[in-house]
Amino acid sequence: MSDQPVKPMALALAVAERAAQAGEVPVGAVLVDASGVVLAQTANRVEELADPTAHAELLALREGARQRGRPILDDCDLYVTLEPCAMCAGAIALARIRRLYFGASDPKGGAVEHGSRFFQQPTCHHRPEIYGGIDATRAGALLRRFFADRR
Amino acid sequence: MSDQPVKPMALALAVAERAAQAGEVPVGAVLVDASGVVLAQTANRVEELADPTAHAELLALREGARQRGRPILDDCDLYVTLEPCAMCAGAIALARIRRLYFGASDPKGGAVEHGSRFFQQPTCHHRPEIYGGIDATRAGALLRRFFADRR
Repeated sequence: MSDQPVKPMALALAVAERAAQAGEVPVGAVLVDASGVVLAQTANRVEELADPTAHAELLALREGARQRGRPILDDCDLYVTLEPCAMCAGAIALARIRRLYFGASDPKGGAVEHGSRFFQQPTCHHRPEIYGGIDATRAGALLRRFFADRR
Repeated sequence: MSDQPVKPMALALAVAERAAQAGEVPVGAVLVDASGVVLAQTANRVEELADPTAHAELLALREGARQRGRPILDDCDLYVTLEPCAMCAGAIALARIRRLYFGASDPKGGAVEHGSRFFQQPTCHHRPEIYGGIDATRAGALLRRFFADRR
């Protein structure tokens, strides 16, 4: 079990890599239940779905809740390759995610360690356990390569 | 045109009232385009859809983007009966909404005037024009009545 945080993140990175090939900003998310079963593996699909809310995290939470038939996922952990933005941090709190593992930090748009630091606000009503920097080098390299290729 | 901010909010309040009757926290949203055409009128449907992200605002943004076939709604205005939370404020910025009109303030969960005050953060990359307190008395009374009835 010692490598448990690594395996879902490796899956999230693979999902992110496929997103890059499809022209989406490469961010991937994996939602697992308490026994480690993968409930959702989702990529950012903002362009494909023409949906400003279709970040990897939001799609994972929605898919997990759909499977469960309820909006609360308090026995679930979310792995995401990039520090969540304000929208996704808010959604993670609303879904009462148990643990959040994220990869690369996002000083420009992140809301966990940067900007609004949402989980530290008094208006945040659920704070997951948070583990940053998981496979961050790979996640960051993937994003940098994607944006370099587009310039 | 002087009453333009009032009419969509009256519609959002009517939508919120129907949500209360269905057992949902009564929040309504209306998305209009630059010429005032209503693109979406949506209520909070978290319980019905078993979706933690199904706040009125998020559903309005998604419906508007679906109609437009693109994730950016920069000529659109959003009316919502309650101060948006962090998730919804983040989504409003991502969709580049032109103007945000909201009703009741939400000191416990709002992210516009309270908590993270997201639109004032350096990690917020689009700030709509913001007008609070529109029909706030009605919006607040509807929420208080809903929660009083449930106690």
